[in-house]
Amino acid sequence: MTTVNQGDPLRADMNRPRETAVVPGHITGFFSAHPAARAAAVGSRGAGVTLSTGVTVTVSPTDAATVLTLNDESVAIGAVTDVLDALGVRARVAMATDLPVGAGFGVSGAAALGTAIAANAAADCGRSENELVRIAHEADVECGTGLGDVVAQARGGVPIRVEPGAPGYGSLDGIPASPRVEYVSFGPLSTADVLAGDTDRLSAAGVHALDRVTDDPRLETFMSASRAFAERADLLAPSVEAAIDAVSAAGGSAAMAMLGQTVFALETGLSDAGYDPDVCRAHPSGARLLPDDSITDESIPVR
Amino acid sequence: MTTVNQGDPLRADMNRPRETAVVPGHITGFFSAHPAARAAAVGSRGAGVTLSTGVTVTVSPTDAATVLTLNDESVAIGAVTDVLDALGVRARVAMATDLPVGAGFGVSGAAALGTAIAANAAADCGRSENELVRIAHEADVECGTGLGDVVAQARGGVPIRVEPGAPGYGSLDGIPASPRVEYVSFGPLSTADVLAGDTDRLSAAGVHALDRVTDDPRLETFMSASRAFAERADLLAPSVEAAIDAVSAAGGSAAMAMLGQTVFALETGLSDAGYDPDVCRAHPSGARLLPDDSITDESIPVR
Repeated sequence: MTTVNQGDPLRADMNRPRETAVVPGHITGFFSAHPAARAAAVGSRGAGVTLSTGVTVTVSPTDAATVLTLNDESVAIGAVTDVLDALGVRARVAMATDLPVGAGFGVSGAAALGTAIAANAAADCGRSENELVRIAHEADVECGTGLGDVVAQARGGVPIRVEPGAPGYGSLDGIPASPRVEYVSFGPLSTADVLAGDTDRLSAAGVHALDRVTDDPRLETFMSASRAFAERADLLAPSVEAAIDAVSAAGGSAAMAMLGQTVFALETGLSDAGYDPDVCRAHPSGARLLPDDSITDESIPVR
Repeated sequence: MTTVNQGDPLRADMNRPRETAVVPGHITGFFSAHPAARAAAVGSRGAGVTLSTGVTVTVSPTDAATVLTLNDESVAIGAVTDVLDALGVRARVAMATDLPVGAGFGVSGAAALGTAIAANAAADCGRSENELVRIAHEADVECGTGLGDVVAQARGGVPIRVEPGAPGYGSLDGIPASPRVEYVSFGPLSTADVLAGDTDRLSAAGVHALDRVTDDPRLETFMSASRAFAERADLLAPSVEAAIDAVSAAGGSAAMAMLGQTVFALETGLSDAGYDPDVCRAHPSGARLLPDDSITDESIPVR
């Protein structure tokens, strides 16, 4: 046969729109958990820092089955599947990240939010930004993979989750700063397991930490409150505790990423303590759709 | 005298921290005006697009008198002075922009917001992001130079002002898109004069336009609603009307920047109609503090 196979789904896909979103990673320094009847109203209060290292999500709608890949390997991420279902889109979703997975960087939330933004654009779903954040937040909550990453990742910077939940329920503020961030990860920690346990003690410590930061929205207070939270929350593995102590001994301030066996510090805290950290900075913008190739022209300045 | 003059304010300034914020321009496509007793609650509902071309604001606290410059010339901007007063900071404020002033680009709002963010950092005022946005919004409102630019400029992208006012009063959504933006300006229009007139007709048209965009948050609907608003608002100067018509005739969609004798179009609308527009894109992030020199290192990726 030499006729063109017009029914071939791979060929058809080549003419489909393909859109890419980039979403920052997010490290939570402290939090309190807030259950509710509706997933959009569930969430956490707390504060964290979004990271210039994040997740890139490219969505290509398809008539065939949905396929997800992370760093070129097939993957199952419940929150991503739920987002596509909520939007009524089947797609190839190609995700890429340099962040460790399951170690407190909000990769699941970033994957869900990036999928929502890119799928909405590629399949012309006509949803607003708040609707897309809500859909991704609900998916992350319902899959037990996050309580507050998505709303923080949508905002960027150093977000304070003043009230829990998606847009229309929660509210955000931020510490107006653009710090350098260093981190070292010693391994994963199951968000679902920790959240399934007794969170009363965690949440009481989280509310106290949040009061400190809303009273004094400075980076030093955020780090100090995060460190105190990690100690009170009783989640410190020996390697994590040793790193936090080493940074303190070197004159810096470090804390634990909630929830992962990950230590983060501002500026050169971990380097000064002799670690070899990954380095990034607070993300300036939060999640966003990448512009078309035609307008990524370097001659158009972002001043 | 060869002794060092330690009391010289210019010398003292050299050791002071100096901080820089960048704030996008903002073009409003349509709006309704909403008075209130408190300046923080005053505002506009509507939608617009933030611009990658904006205002850079460098603040250097000083013990001497406050001095404002715009593009290296001495200038008086009431909203900037009011922001410094609210923060209790005296400073040299050096602003730079390629945007036309008074022509519907939100330069006063950008100057106020950039001053708030940079002064807070330079003088270590310890305010949160929402507080800084509120202070800048109040100043822009009280000076009669803007009703909704500041909150839009803090968000970035293509903001929808769902409810009027500063954080804690208003609420925002956004159209999830990153369009290229073209604009041509034929001159200024006094925001204060227009807002001092009968705004009932304007506001009725603005509410209708907003309903259209919240029902269908797509760029095409935003442009169509903006164009219809400009026609109904009866503010079209002949040169503005001619440009909008020319873009339509060329198959594009243009509207008028509220409030200026300025026409804007998405993608290549004005170029296609034979104009020689300025070109930028929707701002990806909204206002932000520039990081220290030490972390603008290109080796730290923003992925």
